Amino acid sequence: MSSNKTVIVNGRFLVPGTAQPVLSGYMTIEKDLITYIGEVKPVIEEGTQTIDGSRLLFMPGLVNTHGHTAMSLLRGYGDDMVLQNWLQEKMWPMEEKFTGDDVYWGTALSVLEMLKGGTTTFLDMYDHMDRVAEVSEQSGIRAVLMRGVIGLCPEDVQNHKLAEAVAFARNWHGKADGRITTMISPHAPYTCPPEFFMKFVQAAHDLDLPMHTHMSETRREVEQNAADYGLRPVAHLEKLGMFTRPSLVAHGVHLNDEEIEILARYHVGVSHNPGSNLKLASGVARVPELLRAGVTVSLGTDGAASNNNLDMFEEMRLAALIHKGVSGDPTAVPAPEALLMATEYGAQSIFLEGVGRLAPGMKADFIALDIDQPHFLPHTDHLSHAVYSASAKDVAHVWVDGKQVVKHGQCLTLDEEQIRRKAQETFEGLLKR
Amino acid sequence: MSSNKTVIVNGRFLVPGTAQPVLSGYMTIEKDLITYIGEVKPVIEEGTQTIDGSRLLFMPGLVNTHGHTAMSLLRGYGDDMVLQNWLQEKMWPMEEKFTGDDVYWGTALSVLEMLKGGTTTFLDMYDHMDRVAEVSEQSGIRAVLMRGVIGLCPEDVQNHKLAEAVAFARNWHGKADGRITTMISPHAPYTCPPEFFMKFVQAAHDLDLPMHTHMSETRREVEQNAADYGLRPVAHLEKLGMFTRPSLVAHGVHLNDEEIEILARYHVGVSHNPGSNLKLASGVARVPELLRAGVTVSLGTDGAASNNNLDMFEEMRLAALIHKGVSGDPTAVPAPEALLMATEYGAQSIFLEGVGRLAPGMKADFIALDIDQPHFLPHTDHLSHAVYSASAKDVAHVWVDGKQVVKHGQCLTLDEEQIRRKAQETFEGLLKR
Repeated sequence: MSSNKTVIVNGRFLVPGTAQPVLSGYMTIEKDLITYIGEVKPVIEEGTQTIDGSRLLFMPGLVNTHGHTAMSLLRGYGDDMVLQNWLQEKMWPMEEKFTGDDVYWGTALSVLEMLKGGTTTFLDMYDHMDRVAEVSEQSGIRAVLMRGVIGLCPEDVQNHKLAEAVAFARNWHGKADGRITTMISPHAPYTCPPEFFMKFVQAAHDLDLPMHTHMSETRREVEQNAADYGLRPVAHLEKLGMFTRPSLVAHGVHLNDEEIEILARYHVGVSHNPGSNLKLASGVARVPELLRAGVTVSLGTDGAASNNNLDMFEEMRLAALIHKGVSGDPTAVPAPEALLMATEYGAQSIFLEGVGRLAPGMKADFIALDIDQPHFLPHTDHLSHAVYSASAKDVAHVWVDGKQVVKHGQCLTLDEEQIRRKAQETFEGLLKR
Repeated sequence: MSSNKTVIVNGRFLVPGTAQPVLSGYMTIEKDLITYIGEVKPVIEEGTQTIDGSRLLFMPGLVNTHGHTAMSLLRGYGDDMVLQNWLQEKMWPMEEKFTGDDVYWGTALSVLEMLKGGTTTFLDMYDHMDRVAEVSEQSGIRAVLMRGVIGLCPEDVQNHKLAEAVAFARNWHGKADGRITTMISPHAPYTCPPEFFMKFVQAAHDLDLPMHTHMSETRREVEQNAADYGLRPVAHLEKLGMFTRPSLVAHGVHLNDEEIEILARYHVGVSHNPGSNLKLASGVARVPELLRAGVTVSLGTDGAASNNNLDMFEEMRLAALIHKGVSGDPTAVPAPEALLMATEYGAQSIFLEGVGRLAPGMKADFIALDIDQPHFLPHTDHLSHAVYSASAKDVAHVWVDGKQVVKHGQCLTLDEEQIRRKAQETFEGLLKR
């Protein structure tokens, strides 16, 4: 968007959670913000850029609230395996070899896939985070980044990692015109001893940042937590003080009623990762119960090695489908709720104000789908089609922070050809090392 | 394919179920058949058409073994509803109005979507089947067609419908260069009284054709069957003689061990429709147990009104994912098995010999995916990527019976622009009628 003002004319816009969730009309973008959306045509001054919105469906950019982007380098490197074998034989030996450059190219591959597929914001918990921030800055994507720390190591190494996490969080928070924010992230209660975990809570207080961790992904890890500490993970994290900070937990597959009540009470968000949870056979999270209790449930892809793509439309559809099938209730997670989980609830759960909705005053993070295709016909209900029929490949245009980053399916900010080549070379290099 | 012989050079080919499931090399097509596939370059005579297979992944065309294609006209017309309300308030009142022309355009919309998405064979059970056959003939797709008959009507109407089903099956079997075959299809045990159902069994014997029906899709229908006839549906259909014919049942969600054993004994195939079963909250079929018992399990989309797209990659992925998540076994329905379900097992279950596999002597029904995209990188395992990362939109080229029907994503046999317009008009017309 070269001019300061752009008006989309004759568009259809998804505004879930409002009285008119599919709105036909106009949307004005000025600099990084949406300044108008409505049925009435705004005054269009000379020099204003206009975009013909017919044949397109506009919706908020998708928000991916849990992932490890560099793991796209291991996409398809190990499938259909028992979790512990997959980790010990496949993932960990390769990840141990990851250098900053590897993380850079793996992240670039993922960010390219995400932007082209309509994801405008992603959360990343990994290592070599300066390189992840670098890709985020270059690509124009919105990013919530954190060094994820595994604490199963000697105390000096623990402290070194903690210092790294703190330095990263401090250095990058608010950078890239505010597109990058940071959080504090011990990897999981089962990989961080209590005393060490509590240092992260203290750091989050010191820096006034929110926290993120993996929690209750597998039944085994819940049982181990109870055996080790006499508490299930939610009570354990409550005791360690995590929930005194604004918090988001990833997975939350194995939760009892009491735990759901505690999460709701502390306003702890849950990043639901249906694709990864199914593929790794972790189970099916109690999403209808979480939503009913008032918990903010958002959607994440997790790493591409356990998904195996970063298509947030697929996560949205899985969320809308599996909870119906498993609960036996066809009204569970209806389409508008699934869309909110992938957009507005996503932004809320990673503490981004003014993101995730098409409304005046909100950040201009939005995408346009090409709906002049067989699987979007007939035009019965555009919101239903976006949830139940669409895929990442239907995204034609993407804007983040008011800037167009994908146009007619081509990424404007990253060199796709180079990234594809480098990602392949990097994987082949890892195999040889 | 204008010449009689075509050779694909430097391709990658998926041949699941063999010692080398991802083969790099060459494939020769002569007329409607594959005549060679292997690593060794064949002699290429002058005048032979060659296709550069680099950047493409070749695999058998997908086989959709259960659907009602004209229902794409009702895509998104009713979602997130209780099954009976959805049927009674939304589907049935509209379907009652369907004319032959409506079915023609709805089917054309679906066949267009399927061909572009890599489905080369589909099964259709519906009404106005002559018009479905017409679209199938024109489009070049392979089709297994049948008039699905609901018998909840006076005897003269029943007999009229039966006669229609028989006439259609007789007239169209083997037509369109053999691309169209037919089956005999009472709609379901709960919509066809036993005496009426048995007339279809007799007709199938008379015509020497296989049979298809809906079975055990919902728990309620199983309970009703037991209440009405003192038998669960499998024993009921066994008693009515259906399994004396080669048979395929759709759904088979609610089966006990004994029923699985009966299906295996009679070699009855099951068309698994994961997307539809989840969306309508019917439940999760016992696919790992069915496969273990030796039942041929294939994949179907069901109608687009309960799916809501006809993307067989999505069904394949759902089959590979949900049974892991629900069973807790990450090795359940591994990628090669999911791919076989969508291809070779599909062809077997609708009684098509010589379809569903890339091998000499098999029909040249195959597709090519564009794998030079971020979500197919790195090139670790092409079979895994096809199952866990791909979507219908990744299909670049499609051949059926040796003829190319989709090229660079464009359908060569159908007028896409006209179909899109007519499908929309048809839906709007139905609303007004």
